[in-house]
Amino acid sequence: MNAGNLARALFAPDSVALVGASADAAKPGGRPLRYLQRHGFKGRIFPINPRVDRIGGLTCHANLRSVPEPIDHAFIMLSGDAVMTALHDCAEAGVACATILAGGFAEAGGAGHGRQAELLRIAAEGGVRLLGPNSIGMINPAAGATLSANAMLDLPELSTGRTAVVSQSGSMVGALLSHGEARHVGFSKLVSVGNEADLSVGEVGDLLLDDDATDVILLFLETIRKREMFAAFARRAHQVGKPVIAYKLGRSSVGQELARSHTGAIAGTDQAVAAFLAHNGIARVDTIDGLIEAPRLFSDRAPGHGNRVAVVSTTGGGGAMVVDNLGLRGIDVVRVPAPVREQLANHGIGTDDARMIDLTMAGARPEIVRETITGLMAAEQTDAVIMVVGSSAKFHPELAVEPLFHWRGAAKPFAVFLAPDADASLARLAKAGIAVFRTPEACADAMHAALAWRAPGQASKISDAVAPDRPRLAAGHALNERDALALFAALGIETARSGLAENTEQARNIAKQIGAPVVLKIASAEILHKSDIGAVRVGLENADDITAVFNEIVSNAKAMAPTAHIDGVLVQEMAAGVGQVLLGYKIDPLVGPSVVLGVGGVLTEIYRDSALRLAPVGYDDAMAMIEEVRGLAPLRGYRGAKRGDLPCLARAIVNFSELAGRRDIHEAEINPLIVREDGRGIVAVDGLVLGAPGSSA
Amino acid sequence: MNAGNLARALFAPDSVALVGASADAAKPGGRPLRYLQRHGFKGRIFPINPRVDRIGGLTCHANLRSVPEPIDHAFIMLSGDAVMTALHDCAEAGVACATILAGGFAEAGGAGHGRQAELLRIAAEGGVRLLGPNSIGMINPAAGATLSANAMLDLPELSTGRTAVVSQSGSMVGALLSHGEARHVGFSKLVSVGNEADLSVGEVGDLLLDDDATDVILLFLETIRKREMFAAFARRAHQVGKPVIAYKLGRSSVGQELARSHTGAIAGTDQAVAAFLAHNGIARVDTIDGLIEAPRLFSDRAPGHGNRVAVVSTTGGGGAMVVDNLGLRGIDVVRVPAPVREQLANHGIGTDDARMIDLTMAGARPEIVRETITGLMAAEQTDAVIMVVGSSAKFHPELAVEPLFHWRGAAKPFAVFLAPDADASLARLAKAGIAVFRTPEACADAMHAALAWRAPGQASKISDAVAPDRPRLAAGHALNERDALALFAALGIETARSGLAENTEQARNIAKQIGAPVVLKIASAEILHKSDIGAVRVGLENADDITAVFNEIVSNAKAMAPTAHIDGVLVQEMAAGVGQVLLGYKIDPLVGPSVVLGVGGVLTEIYRDSALRLAPVGYDDAMAMIEEVRGLAPLRGYRGAKRGDLPCLARAIVNFSELAGRRDIHEAEINPLIVREDGRGIVAVDGLVLGAPGSSA
Repeated sequence: MNAGNLARALFAPDSVALVGASADAAKPGGRPLRYLQRHGFKGRIFPINPRVDRIGGLTCHANLRSVPEPIDHAFIMLSGDAVMTALHDCAEAGVACATILAGGFAEAGGAGHGRQAELLRIAAEGGVRLLGPNSIGMINPAAGATLSANAMLDLPELSTGRTAVVSQSGSMVGALLSHGEARHVGFSKLVSVGNEADLSVGEVGDLLLDDDATDVILLFLETIRKREMFAAFARRAHQVGKPVIAYKLGRSSVGQELARSHTGAIAGTDQAVAAFLAHNGIARVDTIDGLIEAPRLFSDRAPGHGNRVAVVSTTGGGGAMVVDNLGLRGIDVVRVPAPVREQLANHGIGTDDARMIDLTMAGARPEIVRETITGLMAAEQTDAVIMVVGSSAKFHPELAVEPLFHWRGAAKPFAVFLAPDADASLARLAKAGIAVFRTPEACADAMHAALAWRAPGQASKISDAVAPDRPRLAAGHALNERDALALFAALGIETARSGLAENTEQARNIAKQIGAPVVLKIASAEILHKSDIGAVRVGLENADDITAVFNEIVSNAKAMAPTAHIDGVLVQEMAAGVGQVLLGYKIDPLVGPSVVLGVGGVLTEIYRDSALRLAPVGYDDAMAMIEEVRGLAPLRGYRGAKRGDLPCLARAIVNFSELAGRRDIHEAEINPLIVREDGRGIVAVDGLVLGAPGSSA
Repeated sequence: MNAGNLARALFAPDSVALVGASADAAKPGGRPLRYLQRHGFKGRIFPINPRVDRIGGLTCHANLRSVPEPIDHAFIMLSGDAVMTALHDCAEAGVACATILAGGFAEAGGAGHGRQAELLRIAAEGGVRLLGPNSIGMINPAAGATLSANAMLDLPELSTGRTAVVSQSGSMVGALLSHGEARHVGFSKLVSVGNEADLSVGEVGDLLLDDDATDVILLFLETIRKREMFAAFARRAHQVGKPVIAYKLGRSSVGQELARSHTGAIAGTDQAVAAFLAHNGIARVDTIDGLIEAPRLFSDRAPGHGNRVAVVSTTGGGGAMVVDNLGLRGIDVVRVPAPVREQLANHGIGTDDARMIDLTMAGARPEIVRETITGLMAAEQTDAVIMVVGSSAKFHPELAVEPLFHWRGAAKPFAVFLAPDADASLARLAKAGIAVFRTPEACADAMHAALAWRAPGQASKISDAVAPDRPRLAAGHALNERDALALFAALGIETARSGLAENTEQARNIAKQIGAPVVLKIASAEILHKSDIGAVRVGLENADDITAVFNEIVSNAKAMAPTAHIDGVLVQEMAAGVGQVLLGYKIDPLVGPSVVLGVGGVLTEIYRDSALRLAPVGYDDAMAMIEEVRGLAPLRGYRGAKRGDLPCLARAIVNFSELAGRRDIHEAEINPLIVREDGRGIVAVDGLVLGAPGSSA
């Protein structure tokens, strides 16, 4: 089935079957028919129930096979084995698309996985595309196609709008629908993807990119499934100019745990998810109000704004709340630009050097508000403008907010925060396509999301691009330190000079070549924590010490790790610098190949202080990672510290991230990576490379 | 005037004068009369305006003195010098209380300070209590006493309720009023305190403690003025059982800057403000919705709950959002307690070990919801319960929320989050006195505030309790290191053994007594950063070194600080431990005497990682400070590190905080304070003590 046909069957079917329809309109199985009829579905509806003749004025069929005409979309409300039977019937009847309401599949764990695999097999063999299982259904308000059991469809009517929702949570579809209504925001489509056994967020999202009724796509996420399809959708969204905005559960560890138990899927760390979303050009909000209210801040605008926001207010306290919340999110709230200050002075309005223009006294004069915003929009010091409206929004919407309609679709994001509860103004602004917010928190959250929104980076993918002719690292195996360092060197990362000594004489000779002082470490791919077992010694100056320490290290290693294969002792230069970092790589089960940078040691853990990006990482992103790690402030010259060679560190990050070109490598680490003074480069001192988990793992 | 008479004049006057009343009802000066008449004010109203005969059907007087009867409360809407004249008239006419609307006083800076002092002088001499200046007025909805120009009073009617608002922002009074109406929350009183020239948050709050119509007091704060009165009010609030909940602007640095420019007052660091609020038993929310919706979570409950919350939900996604937001705020979201799990199993409802009870399938059955909440309320594993209601809240409020009325006033905090927009349920719950929230963020914020709420600590005050007979430290002066350490020793803090040497021979003798190795440092109260000028040397073992270093240090100090008076060289033991901290004390201009604990050095700054409390600090609070500093994790035994002597460190914090008993000491620091292994104590190695800023500062 091509995408166009799938989209039609999924979103705008001409004929639908309600499998397991109930004659009791109060039961979940009775709802969809009632909803379809209430919301004016124009297509043909076939209730399927062998025990009833007619439901809702329509003839009931015993099963799908007995329906006399083709069905585009079947909504299966049965549970247990009856789901399988119904899906078989769909296949036989040539149904294009089936939505499965029931749970008890992969999200339930255990035998649920097998049941879901069975569903998928039946669907694939029968050429039926599947939404769910565990999906509350699909709602297309404009077509009255409310193929869903969601109780929120009891609403007397549904607004339509140009924002689509794709949700992994079924119950949130109803919540979003009701909040949209209350905020005068309608939707083009709402889709509950459930377990994504077949149709995933990525594939549904991709269909919406070709949907003429949709401008912006909102995602409510619990996890990330089918990440490559997901990423491809998000990247194509930029090509077609449709912003994608996500809310993701699992920012806290208890939230991650719950998402895992709720979906049966990996929740992933929030840091990894954030990197995935950012890398693929998906904007992210942290508040649910922000998600609902953000779309108009994005529509008709390209990504990549600066971080400077001007705030104008007709209420001191309301404006100050917005400024404070912007500041908390790291947004640069600008002082009044000089030209705007002059404009205002011409009206006798003095502005001090504050980070807000308080028009309280001039509040009721729309022409001043308009002139001020025009000035701010034109000012080169601003990247976005927020207007905060006080009590006039409550009683004089025509004066207070109509002048603001002008900035619909302006190049710089423009948002309005209404300090009082003021529904008439909210409605007018929403209908005029202006982003309007009810709380300072949601306003700052959405503005932050809009300004942080960027075009996607280079596609992240595991490939075999790097040295495809090289020997592969077998599953369950690791490289010893010397081979690991050689691999990093092959990627273009400077490594500490070293040599592998099999006996004390070799050790002394290598040390002589390198020059004192040197470090001696056991060389074994099977000993990962060398220091802990006394198999590392630093600062060795003379030949006698080297001989003695060689023997000591080998004997310690043999005593503490009697089964490990020992390759010898690594003799290495003692590298010194102005700081050091830890650079890690892994194929994250949720988001794929990724690189992490931290200070290393206990501080990285205590302060959760690291930067993570999907691999491969570009140079600018590598520099951004270095900026992000707070503990690297001294390397950035904080308080007069000697600056490290950050450009060289950034290049090392870029090079290291090319491990994504080695499908056989699942994890790697350089720790420490010594950073020398600016201009003097970096040097990798110790490292680790692991293959795929072994079969025993 | 006693408090009762003041409260009556301020909140429930029998007679009011509107000074500067305008006949144009659209102008701010025309509003109060219109509002008083609209909202049914029963007292007598006297408009004052020499240019008009009648306004709103009432006789207009030329000035206050010509009003034939006593005035309780005058609302002065004039500006400029006319304010002074009107206040003089108030004094002459025996007006009890005057509210001044005009700005341009202390908040404007410069000459505004003088004008405000003049106001205050006139009021004090005339026996008039003052609200403002820069106050939008006072609203008492039950009495229809809307003595305010706030445009929100155009509302057709005002709900009444048992929550009072005291706001430093005038415009927020209207915003809170409108949001309260939209959430079915009425207020008992709303007071804009403006610049607090006379009546302050503390004094107005204190009056509300005796107000029979008020159960809970909300504060909207930009700064803290008259802190001792403020603290006294907050502490008495606990005695009378009225919770005080604050929202404070200035969590971000731009917010602090704006608050400063907006109020003309010091904003203070957020950390200091947080310490002040917590110390005085004031709960604090971070979201404005949280402020409006929190009161019912506090009313009828004592402070001091644990941190364990149970979440029950009839919507998976909605419940998960609450759990996630609770987790972000450090709340312990509990797993289903065994007895509740058994109860549910009896109904055939399986609960896995998740941190939420998902009753989606049983959602429509009120008896199960009720039984589950009853079980959770009774469980010893929980300190509070949150119920999340899904779509049933929208269409079946009677089924969905009426069973929840039962937990009004329950001993454990009980909150409801409505996942959909569901105004009918919101109204029912609000009217039934149940805390109900519209966003997961506000719900988690308010719950966090309720659980973190504690009874006040020991009153914080600067006194002369410690050694009142000792010589005072003069303004502009500092103690040298030796005297500083002696002061700390006198407070009961162990200090490094040391002696002051005036020559090399004394230095060698002292070193001999102490035992090698020793440290030599310049001793001068005028050299604060000894290390920077080469005037500290550590690890000296023998007499020759001591002689050489003594001379070197003295010559470095003379070269680098030629005008400093040098007392000699301090010879000190080299103390070693398992870690070290910085302990600081200062009289903060906003919150008063306070103690700060950090790791010291660059990390404390980079990670903003310190704990702050008002002084004096009790032992439990000192232990809590140690827990709070993330960088002290190794001292707490993180990852197998040797534990430090934390009880001894806590006692040192307690002792150090007694500096609040020395009015002459404005700042002090022990840096470093070495922490030895558990059981071996602590030792102060270096310190600093400063008097009040000098006249040149």
